[in-house]
Amino acid sequence: MTTASAFSEEEKAAVYRAIMTRRDVRDEFLPDPIEPETLMRILEAAHHAPSVGFMQPWNFILVRDEERRKAVFEAFSRANDEAAELFSGEKAVLYRQLKLQGILKAPLGICVTCDPDRAGPVVLGRTHNPRMDSYSTVCAIQNLWLAARAEGIGVGWVSIFHDADLRAILNIPAGIEIIGWLCLGKVSALYDQPELQVKGWRDRLALEDLIFHEEWRREP
Amino acid sequence: MTTASAFSEEEKAAVYRAIMTRRDVRDEFLPDPIEPETLMRILEAAHHAPSVGFMQPWNFILVRDEERRKAVFEAFSRANDEAAELFSGEKAVLYRQLKLQGILKAPLGICVTCDPDRAGPVVLGRTHNPRMDSYSTVCAIQNLWLAARAEGIGVGWVSIFHDADLRAILNIPAGIEIIGWLCLGKVSALYDQPELQVKGWRDRLALEDLIFHEEWRREP
Repeated sequence: MTTASAFSEEEKAAVYRAIMTRRDVRDEFLPDPIEPETLMRILEAAHHAPSVGFMQPWNFILVRDEERRKAVFEAFSRANDEAAELFSGEKAVLYRQLKLQGILKAPLGICVTCDPDRAGPVVLGRTHNPRMDSYSTVCAIQNLWLAARAEGIGVGWVSIFHDADLRAILNIPAGIEIIGWLCLGKVSALYDQPELQVKGWRDRLALEDLIFHEEWRREP
Repeated sequence: MTTASAFSEEEKAAVYRAIMTRRDVRDEFLPDPIEPETLMRILEAAHHAPSVGFMQPWNFILVRDEERRKAVFEAFSRANDEAAELFSGEKAVLYRQLKLQGILKAPLGICVTCDPDRAGPVVLGRTHNPRMDSYSTVCAIQNLWLAARAEGIGVGWVSIFHDADLRAILNIPAGIEIIGWLCLGKVSALYDQPELQVKGWRDRLALEDLIFHEEWRREP
């Protein structure tokens, strides 16, 4: 065991800097490859996420091949055309103006998956919530994202795919759950606020309105 | 836009320190209350998680009342007795020895929820993966966890509940998804490695075995 004191003010500031300046990057990727040691540090950060029953259900499929990334981009494009049809009015116009992925611009794609059988059929902590393994995998993605920010690497999470398309392109077996496709690369710059906020899609909510006391909606 | 350079070596080390030394705390909680400013910084960190379509679907129900925490503990205990029955042999013996929650020992419980209707029925990025809103909420939990580590606050995620029990105790409406119950408090010490590893439940996997190239299971 180690004494669990708070970090120094400088260390705390660094952690909050990563959290507050992390962005979901779509268009600011540079073509330069990520140094292998940097990438491994980022993946180690992901691998040190909490996981239910310590099952570590994640895999990371690193995709650099341009032909394969083109296939992923085409899968995105098909799904995104369908998605655009679901919005109407001003939102539909704005939706079509937004760039929602950096699949071809970012030099590295990572498909993050979750193997529900990683630790056998009965998993400590998953017995009453079958989603816990996917939640562990999402924690790994958030660790990866923050480590990448500290390394000067941008990350964008793309979710607009038909699962079957991505599964076919990457030969992912039926029992494995696809959690997300991440675009990674060095970046020229980052937005000061979330891009969807800057572009008028939606505002940040007031945190105070999201905090309840003792039960749902009981104000302080 | 801001130039997106890498952090200094000291800043990077602080981010990795938070990631690598974060633990899922069950038994090391101290009774001292968390300072309100510290708690708000931690919740701001959660609120700055990425969210699909910037929907910010999370709420945080802060539970300090001991009677209510006792009810939550009883809900855990009932579910955990069921869970223990699912293991056999050595695992069953070890399972019953593990302390899997700090609901009464930690002075603060936070139930983190996800409101799928936060941004209307059609959400940018959720059109092809209905789980994206819950994944955003999990990213908020991981941000909270890392900020708490930097502040010297321990966090434990408890998932062994029947959803209906927690919902009743906290008056959570049917349309709102319960993502997790977190125990928060100052801590006397932290394990150097995940507690389940230290106690022989399961070992850390080798990261290299979890990384594939170009497609599922293609080795480098």
